[in-house]
Amino acid sequence: MYMLSEEHKLTVKVIREFVDQHVRPKARSIDKGEYPRQLLKLLGELNILVPTLPPDVGGAGADTLTQVLVVEELAKASPGLATIMEIQSSMLAENLYHNGNKVHREEVVPKLASGEAVGAFALSEPCCGSDAAAIQTRAERRGGEWVINGTKMWITSGLYADYYLVFARSGPAEARHRAITAFLLHRNSCIEATPIEVMGVRGTGTAEVRLNDCRAGDDDVVGEVNGGWKIAMWGINMGRLNVGAIGLGIAEEALREAYIYAQRRIAFGKAISEFQIIQHYLAEMYARTEALRSVVYTAAKMRDAGDSDFPLYAQVAKLLGSRTAVDVVRLALQIQGGYGYSTDSPLEMLYRDAKVTEIYEGTNEIILNTIYKFMREKFA
Amino acid sequence: MYMLSEEHKLTVKVIREFVDQHVRPKARSIDKGEYPRQLLKLLGELNILVPTLPPDVGGAGADTLTQVLVVEELAKASPGLATIMEIQSSMLAENLYHNGNKVHREEVVPKLASGEAVGAFALSEPCCGSDAAAIQTRAERRGGEWVINGTKMWITSGLYADYYLVFARSGPAEARHRAITAFLLHRNSCIEATPIEVMGVRGTGTAEVRLNDCRAGDDDVVGEVNGGWKIAMWGINMGRLNVGAIGLGIAEEALREAYIYAQRRIAFGKAISEFQIIQHYLAEMYARTEALRSVVYTAAKMRDAGDSDFPLYAQVAKLLGSRTAVDVVRLALQIQGGYGYSTDSPLEMLYRDAKVTEIYEGTNEIILNTIYKFMREKFA
Amino acid sequence: MYMLSEEHKLTVKVIREFVDQHVRPKARSIDKGEYPRQLLKLLGELNILVPTLPPDVGGAGADTLTQVLVVEELAKASPGLATIMEIQSSMLAENLYHNGNKVHREEVVPKLASGEAVGAFALSEPCCGSDAAAIQTRAERRGGEWVINGTKMWITSGLYADYYLVFARSGPAEARHRAITAFLLHRNSCIEATPIEVMGVRGTGTAEVRLNDCRAGDDDVVGEVNGGWKIAMWGINMGRLNVGAIGLGIAEEALREAYIYAQRRIAFGKAISEFQIIQHYLAEMYARTEALRSVVYTAAKMRDAGDSDFPLYAQVAKLLGSRTAVDVVRLALQIQGGYGYSTDSPLEMLYRDAKVTEIYEGTNEIILNTIYKFMREKFA
Amino acid sequence: MYMLSEEHKLTVKVIREFVDQHVRPKARSIDKGEYPRQLLKLLGELNILVPTLPPDVGGAGADTLTQVLVVEELAKASPGLATIMEIQSSMLAENLYHNGNKVHREEVVPKLASGEAVGAFALSEPCCGSDAAAIQTRAERRGGEWVINGTKMWITSGLYADYYLVFARSGPAEARHRAITAFLLHRNSCIEATPIEVMGVRGTGTAEVRLNDCRAGDDDVVGEVNGGWKIAMWGINMGRLNVGAIGLGIAEEALREAYIYAQRRIAFGKAISEFQIIQHYLAEMYARTEALRSVVYTAAKMRDAGDSDFPLYAQVAKLLGSRTAVDVVRLALQIQGGYGYSTDSPLEMLYRDAKVTEIYEGTNEIILNTIYKFMREKFA
Repeated sequence: MYMLSEEHKLTVKVIREFVDQHVRPKARSIDKGEYPRQLLKLLGELNILVPTLPPDVGGAGADTLTQVLVVEELAKASPGLATIMEIQSSMLAENLYHNGNKVHREEVVPKLASGEAVGAFALSEPCCGSDAAAIQTRAERRGGEWVINGTKMWITSGLYADYYLVFARSGPAEARHRAITAFLLHRNSCIEATPIEVMGVRGTGTAEVRLNDCRAGDDDVVGEVNGGWKIAMWGINMGRLNVGAIGLGIAEEALREAYIYAQRRIAFGKAISEFQIIQHYLAEMYARTEALRSVVYTAAKMRDAGDSDFPLYAQVAKLLGSRTAVDVVRLALQIQGGYGYSTDSPLEMLYRDAKVTEIYEGTNEIILNTIYKFMREKFA
Repeated sequence: MYMLSEEHKLTVKVIREFVDQHVRPKARSIDKGEYPRQLLKLLGELNILVPTLPPDVGGAGADTLTQVLVVEELAKASPGLATIMEIQSSMLAENLYHNGNKVHREEVVPKLASGEAVGAFALSEPCCGSDAAAIQTRAERRGGEWVINGTKMWITSGLYADYYLVFARSGPAEARHRAITAFLLHRNSCIEATPIEVMGVRGTGTAEVRLNDCRAGDDDVVGEVNGGWKIAMWGINMGRLNVGAIGLGIAEEALREAYIYAQRRIAFGKAISEFQIIQHYLAEMYARTEALRSVVYTAAKMRDAGDSDFPLYAQVAKLLGSRTAVDVVRLALQIQGGYGYSTDSPLEMLYRDAKVTEIYEGTNEIILNTIYKFMREKFA
Repeated sequence: MYMLSEEHKLTVKVIREFVDQHVRPKARSIDKGEYPRQLLKLLGELNILVPTLPPDVGGAGADTLTQVLVVEELAKASPGLATIMEIQSSMLAENLYHNGNKVHREEVVPKLASGEAVGAFALSEPCCGSDAAAIQTRAERRGGEWVINGTKMWITSGLYADYYLVFARSGPAEARHRAITAFLLHRNSCIEATPIEVMGVRGTGTAEVRLNDCRAGDDDVVGEVNGGWKIAMWGINMGRLNVGAIGLGIAEEALREAYIYAQRRIAFGKAISEFQIIQHYLAEMYARTEALRSVVYTAAKMRDAGDSDFPLYAQVAKLLGSRTAVDVVRLALQIQGGYGYSTDSPLEMLYRDAKVTEIYEGTNEIILNTIYKFMREKFA
Repeated sequence: MYMLSEEHKLTVKVIREFVDQHVRPKARSIDKGEYPRQLLKLLGELNILVPTLPPDVGGAGADTLTQVLVVEELAKASPGLATIMEIQSSMLAENLYHNGNKVHREEVVPKLASGEAVGAFALSEPCCGSDAAAIQTRAERRGGEWVINGTKMWITSGLYADYYLVFARSGPAEARHRAITAFLLHRNSCIEATPIEVMGVRGTGTAEVRLNDCRAGDDDVVGEVNGGWKIAMWGINMGRLNVGAIGLGIAEEALREAYIYAQRRIAFGKAISEFQIIQHYLAEMYARTEALRSVVYTAAKMRDAGDSDFPLYAQVAKLLGSRTAVDVVRLALQIQGGYGYSTDSPLEMLYRDAKVTEIYEGTNEIILNTIYKFMREKFA
């Protein structure tokens, strides 16, 4: 594979072994609702839970492409685990490492990188998923500290997190994204999490999280007061690239599953892979998957190169990653027919899991809005 | 609605009330695995479990369009129930009424029509879903009776059926569809059913059904010996039209759900229905749903008119019905975002349910093959 | 074909003969730019240029379905001629017959119905295609008459028309559609038409039409002063159904062309129709074409039945008709390969012609907006 | 743009200037049928007619990415010119340079590289476009030389070529691709070319070419006797990548055209770029265009890196390039509406031109077959 260096290929090999040994056997129990805390620790031990951090805080000193490769490989076996991991790594740990204070960097980040602690990114609210700048959770100054009240929604790892990166309104609603502050809160009795039952990426501890008079000191602010939007965007752009990688992993796995099945399944006296329509489905899936790979890897390399187009390409990766995943699994399941629709096939899970990629970390409609905004700057 | 007579409109009204009162409250428990036996009885009491039969055997003396309207309305609330019902009515009861012997017609059909008994259509096998003419279940003559052995797969109501319409090989494999005989077997210790866990249309009692030395007399043959293929096709053509109706019901329900949500859900300071992209999604869903309605109703009317194009149109209804259902639910869920992905929304279930319509009663690939075969006759 | 009565089938037969004898031999010269005035006269002689008018004014006293069938059949051979005819019939003659005054009805309509005169529907302007309510052509009262000035754009038959149904602003721009009046102007030196060169539906005399101090009396007003919008919509709704029929004709013709070619063309030692992918393309084209037929014919029947959903269904017919035409011709041309891309194949023309159906008589984006508006009334 | 080095960016800049100055002003006259011989010479003077050749034979010593960039930029203004150029460069000159003999390399290649001579790739035949291994043109030994007879079809530059790379059967038909030999023939009275009128990429001198007793010596064989298939494939794989680049150029140009138009065109009181659906169309076009760019550039880099996946990626580039071009121009033209459909807009030409990319150098159906063949090797 031209696009990967020898080092990256080695990384892929190592992760694949890890996935085969540890993740695949657990994929269905995660799907049934078991939060894979133990797997996070194992990833941490290998320094690939947050691969882009320096080794001294528990990372592998790796580049963004490595991050993307890990997410992709995890997603093949368990898009749920990949989701937990990409939030823990990019939206929490790496974000805190670059934008947090000394305590965040030296105390919290290593725990997140080792998997000792779990982190949640608490931005969305019942009022506001797509329109994040309208969040209503309030952070008010009382007696030299902040008191935070509100409800967060669709929070991955929300049930089990030790740390919550909470975005709260620290000024008037009209100021929208200019009056939002990010706080890192330790799990605490002021935080109440209720599970949300979802179609796919189950086992991710997705929850509604209520904050009841949560106290925070100035040291708990991440970045600047009223500068929370920057922290959120930092995480979200990387999160969107990660969703592209999840889509890539899902598409590849679905293709592989369907390919193998088509060689073995006999109908009308021959392997169904002998039928031209099945061959075209597989070729179509391959072409679209490889196009997605090009986009996702290119976006990752852009980030490391400091290319100003990275945020734009991250949106493109998210858009195409999610759409490719849904389309490819649909075709793959079609090749498997009834078997694919049964829980005996991994495709049954991937079909449910894939759909969330069109929704989370920004619905595809928000992504299209955002791409157009970037285009205006670029084409101006 | 121009396409419906006043009488059909009244039928729709009655079924909708039934569905609202009885089916909607049970939809999620059916989805969780509860086979809706009680609902079949209630449908039977209203003479709409097999609406096309004459009243003396428990039907409503209605036309095919009525059958289709009942399936469509049931599918809005529970595609699983609609699936059970359409097989019970078209593939079993109506089939037996027209093609069975006196006992079938006078004893079995009334029980199926009243919901007192449940019927299963046992054609598919582990070896052969798409290639039904290759089935391996054998019916052998031994001492003046038939002995049937084999395994059937993906049998709706297979766990709970009182009657199984079993298709078995009564001659050499090479004779393919010309050496298949249909038998109506009463539930019996020779029949062993194992549940199959599936992604959607759950609660349908879908099973693998093993036949171990099942005995059948000549009276148990439906139609002619070696004439089973005709019986199967009779059921399947009507089954495919029914799948078109299931797709229609799913699409309509998804559109209605998304429409209502879009009026209520606020983002960026206004109802999301104010956004042009949401309006276009809804308009798109509407246009495709109405096109599907035209096809499904036209095919139903063709059947009653004895139009020779009916089997061809039934395939078209199946193809477009399934595809429209999957596409429309995908868009609808996109409009609902996270809510649609949670089990609080009916779309979470419809998304899983819709996919089976592309697969069961002939995968869409088989349907395309079949349409082309019909085209060759027609265009010749 | 179930959907057609014996009478309609006979109509189709007659038109097909006409088309084979008169239209097909001229299709390419029309495409090269020759306006088919003679064909309009021949259609007039058969009373099918405006089939829905009573016989005494030159129609056939036929229903809307007949109108649609004529358009469909003409479009198979020449979408350009079909376009000219549908505007002449539905947007001019029928419109004037129902909404015009005695002179319009008794003097102009018979000339339009016989093909003696040609009519143009002059609504669009350089400023405003999609936003027709913003037109800038002005009709001002001067000395007891109207003086009209402005420029009309994309006017079919604009180069050759004897009558122009001109929509002009008769009040303030802010009043938008409430201050527009329709005038029927006879060709005259105040009218200057410049040809517009277009990709397809060539030979339709499409022009930019400048109105320089055109005088009109009160008798030239069609409908009420400031009531022009109603006249425009009357024509446009029917025009949109007609576009659906043009799309249907194009799709059918493309399918037939591709089907025949696939039987004859040999590759890899067999007819290409033996390849499964070609069979699936053909089956796909067939399914979509028949779904379109259902919608178009249903909409036509709705109009005659006075169903209030007609305008909504007319939009659906336009949307799906245009999209189906473009998609089906694309596949058909793909089956023909290089031959289809050459001017030896009718598909070369149909490919160019089909695209306009997504644009004219309301771009598909306007159609989607309109469908949503209707949905709001319907779902409220 | 991350994917390009500074050197490549400079190349792009230079070519863009060339295109703006020389190609854009001629695009419509090429479309009207004027073969751009003079432009080939100008490209030759800049050493970018065959950029990958060493400077001593008239190239720029550039890499495959440079080749692709030139094709892409030319295609923006004139897909016809880009087609002529890519065949001249990759399928003729570079092919002869690597696979021809000393005379080919030293005498013919420089003439092709300078634009002094024009070359045609004569593989397809009336019998056989997709099934090239079945060609019927015969090369027979007579008196120590070869005598070639047959008819070639869809030959770009066929009307004007000075050299024809002719593939002829040099053994039994049953041997298919193992009995084909490549000959380089100089224009000569034995060669008769008849123009083929096509929908797009006009002005390319596309012709049917009849070979009547053309004589060839052993020195005119390119590669081995019966080794012509290797020569053909060498050219075709690179040709397919080039088609990907043509698709990329078309898509980019269409997007730019539509973007600019959307900023300027007013409807309903604002620029149409203010409408969300237009923004989403543009964002969609952008996302798909950039994904295509990633694939095309990656494939080019793979070739230079000697990656064994290059031929597979070249197919993917062709498949997605052609499809993206057709889809993106369709949307772009939709944004321009009537204007886009008129010959005043470049989109009118690009719409016609784009379609050929789904057909030439292997129809997309052949491409899908080929991708599947490569997959089998790769996944085995």
